[in-house]
Amino acid sequence: MTSIIVNLPEQSYEIAIAPGGIDQLGEMMSNLKLGKKVLLVSNPTIFKHYGQRVLASLEAAGFEVVSCNLSPGERYKTLSSVQKIYDTALENRIERSSTMVALGGGVIGDMTGFAAATWLRGINFVQVPTSLLAMVDAAIGGKTGVNHPQGKNLIGAFHQPRLVLIDPEVLKSLPVREFRAGMAEVIKYGVIWDAELFAQMEESKRLDQLRYIKAELIEAILNRSCQAKADVVGKDEKEAGLRAILNYGHTIAHAVESLTGYRVVNHGEAVAIGMVAAGQIAVKLGMWKKEEAERQDALIQKASLPTKLPDGVDIEAIIESLQLDKKVKAGKVRFILPTQIGVVTITDEVPSDTIREVLQAMQ
Amino acid sequence: MTSIIVNLPEQSYEIAIAPGGIDQLGEMMSNLKLGKKVLLVSNPTIFKHYGQRVLASLEAAGFEVVSCNLSPGERYKTLSSVQKIYDTALENRIERSSTMVALGGGVIGDMTGFAAATWLRGINFVQVPTSLLAMVDAAIGGKTGVNHPQGKNLIGAFHQPRLVLIDPEVLKSLPVREFRAGMAEVIKYGVIWDAELFAQMEESKRLDQLRYIKAELIEAILNRSCQAKADVVGKDEKEAGLRAILNYGHTIAHAVESLTGYRVVNHGEAVAIGMVAAGQIAVKLGMWKKEEAERQDALIQKASLPTKLPDGVDIEAIIESLQLDKKVKAGKVRFILPTQIGVVTITDEVPSDTIREVLQAMQ
Repeated sequence: MTSIIVNLPEQSYEIAIAPGGIDQLGEMMSNLKLGKKVLLVSNPTIFKHYGQRVLASLEAAGFEVVSCNLSPGERYKTLSSVQKIYDTALENRIERSSTMVALGGGVIGDMTGFAAATWLRGINFVQVPTSLLAMVDAAIGGKTGVNHPQGKNLIGAFHQPRLVLIDPEVLKSLPVREFRAGMAEVIKYGVIWDAELFAQMEESKRLDQLRYIKAELIEAILNRSCQAKADVVGKDEKEAGLRAILNYGHTIAHAVESLTGYRVVNHGEAVAIGMVAAGQIAVKLGMWKKEEAERQDALIQKASLPTKLPDGVDIEAIIESLQLDKKVKAGKVRFILPTQIGVVTITDEVPSDTIREVLQAMQ
Repeated sequence: MTSIIVNLPEQSYEIAIAPGGIDQLGEMMSNLKLGKKVLLVSNPTIFKHYGQRVLASLEAAGFEVVSCNLSPGERYKTLSSVQKIYDTALENRIERSSTMVALGGGVIGDMTGFAAATWLRGINFVQVPTSLLAMVDAAIGGKTGVNHPQGKNLIGAFHQPRLVLIDPEVLKSLPVREFRAGMAEVIKYGVIWDAELFAQMEESKRLDQLRYIKAELIEAILNRSCQAKADVVGKDEKEAGLRAILNYGHTIAHAVESLTGYRVVNHGEAVAIGMVAAGQIAVKLGMWKKEEAERQDALIQKASLPTKLPDGVDIEAIIESLQLDKKVKAGKVRFILPTQIGVVTITDEVPSDTIREVLQAMQ
C-alpha cells in the first residue's frame, strides 16, 4: 500500500493506494473517528460490481449504511441528481457527524462531494474513485460541483474529503474508453509537472489499454499522478495561483464538452484535444519547442485519444464559450501553456486570432 | 457611523452601522478591491423601496450592476430560487472576482450567500440587510442556505460576506410584524450574552414598534446585538462549540416553523416560542430561576411576540421533528438552556418527557 498525504492547513488527508483496498474501506474509515452513519452514493453499474463488497466492509466496521444510486453520465451531473442525495440524507437522518462516501467516477465524486459540502453546511466525505480519471484527478483536491445547463462545473464548492481510497484492481472492470480518458489527465501531469513520468510513458509501447501496460508503469502512473496533484493542491488549495496549472488543456476542453452537450467526447478526450490546442498555441507564441509539442501529441495518440476537434463544432462558438469559463478574469481568458516538458506558465495574453488559427488546423 | 469587526482567521470583515448608509454602499465596496461586476439580489417589495438608491450608489462608484428579484417569503427559500440567481449570473457573465449583493431580509441574504458560496465555487458577497432580524443576526456570520421541503436550512454552506452594511433608517419601512420578529433575536442576545442589553430593554416601556422606542435604545439594540454576534462568530466560526449558543430557542422554533409550513409564524415568532419553551425546560431541570424565566417572557410579551404554540400543532410531531435538526448528534437533541440572564449552557440531556410537559403547558 502506498500512502500519499495531501497537506492542508485545516485538515490533511490520506490518499491510500491499495490493491484490494475496497475490502478495507470500513477499517480505514474507523481510524478517522467518524459518526456511525454512512450514505453511500454510486451508480447502478458501479454498484453492481463493487457495492456489496463496500457495504460488507463498512458494516463489518460497525457503520450503518444507506445507499443512493444516481443515473450515470456527465449529463446527469445536475442539481436534480444532488437533490436525490439530499432526499436520501433526509429520509435517513444523515447528521453532521455522518459521512457521505462516493463510489464511482468523477461525476459521482463531484456530486457526492457537493452534497456533502452543502448538507447541514458540510459533513464528512470519503472518495472511493473507480475510474482512472477520478483516481488521479477528480477525487483529490476538494473541487466539487455540478454543471449548469450552459456550463460545466459552474455550481460548486471546495470541500476536501477525509480519505481517498484507490484500489487499482478496480481498473480491470473499467471500459477501455474510460481508461483512455484517465490517461489524458496522466499525460497532463507529465507535461505540467513531472518530466520523469512523461519519459516513462514514452518508453511504453502502448498506453491505450490497461492489459498492455506493465504493472510497474501503472503503479508509477497512479503514484506519481496522485503525488503531483497532492503537491499542487497542498501548495494552493483554493486556486489562488499555482493550482490553475492543473487546468492545462481544460479551457478549450470545457468549451468542446459543453458545445457538444457532453454526449460526443468524454472529459478526458476533451482534455486531450485541449492539450493539443494549448500546445499549438504555445508553439505559435514562440513559448514552446515544436518538437516537444509533437512528443506530447505522440503520447496522446499512443493512448488512442483524439487530437482533432469533433465534427461539426463551430470554432466561433468555442471562442465565445471561453468567455464563460470560470477562469475568465475581467473578460480575459486564462491559458496554461507549456514552456518545456514538466513546466507550464499561466497567461491571459493569447490573441483570439491565434486560438482561431490553431482550432482551424484541428478541424 | 459605528464599525464592528468580525475577526476571522481567513478574512475579517466590517459590520458598518450607518444611518443613510445605503447611499454609500458603492463607495464602501470600492475600498474592498472587488471586481467591476455586481449581481444585486432582492425582492420586488424591497427593490421598489431601495433598489434605485443602491443601484445609483454602486454605479456612481463604477460598478456594472445587474439585478435579480426573487419571490418574497420563507417558502421561496428553495434551490429553485437559487437557480434563478445562477441563471442571472450565467447570462451576465458573473466572474470569480464579481460580487453578489443581498438587499433584503434573512431569506434574500441566506439565498444570495448560498449562491455566492457555490457560484464558481465561491465569489464575493456583501450583505445589505433591510429587516431587523437580518441586521442583528442573519446577515452576520456566514451561514447561508435554503430549506429542504422537510426541514429548514438543511442545505447550505459557510460563506462569509466581505461587508455587512446596516442602514438603520431602512427600519422605518419595515412592517411591524417583521420588526417584532427581529426583536426576538435581540432578546435572545440579552438572554445568552448581554445582561446589560437585557436590562436596557426592561427599562423601555414598549418594544413592539420602532416609533415607540427611544433612538438611544435602537442604537444600543443594533450595536450590542451585532457586537454579540461578531464576538461569538469570531470565537467559533464553524460552530464547533460556542457558536451553538446562538441557536438558543431555535431547536423548537425550527420544528414549529417546519410543521406549520412556514406560513403561520415567522422565524422570529417561532424563536420567541422556542425561547419560552427552552426557558421552561431550564426551570424544570432546576438550571434556571423561575423569576428570570418570567423576566424573559415579559420582554417577549412586551415585544408583542407569542409565548404559546400556534393552534393545531401536534406536540408529538414537534418531538419527532427535533430529531431532524442539524444539531442532532447520535440521535440526541441538543438544547441551549439559560442558567442566568446573559449566560447559557449546552446540553443534550433533556428527557423527551420534559419537552412534552413544557409544550403541553404552552398549548
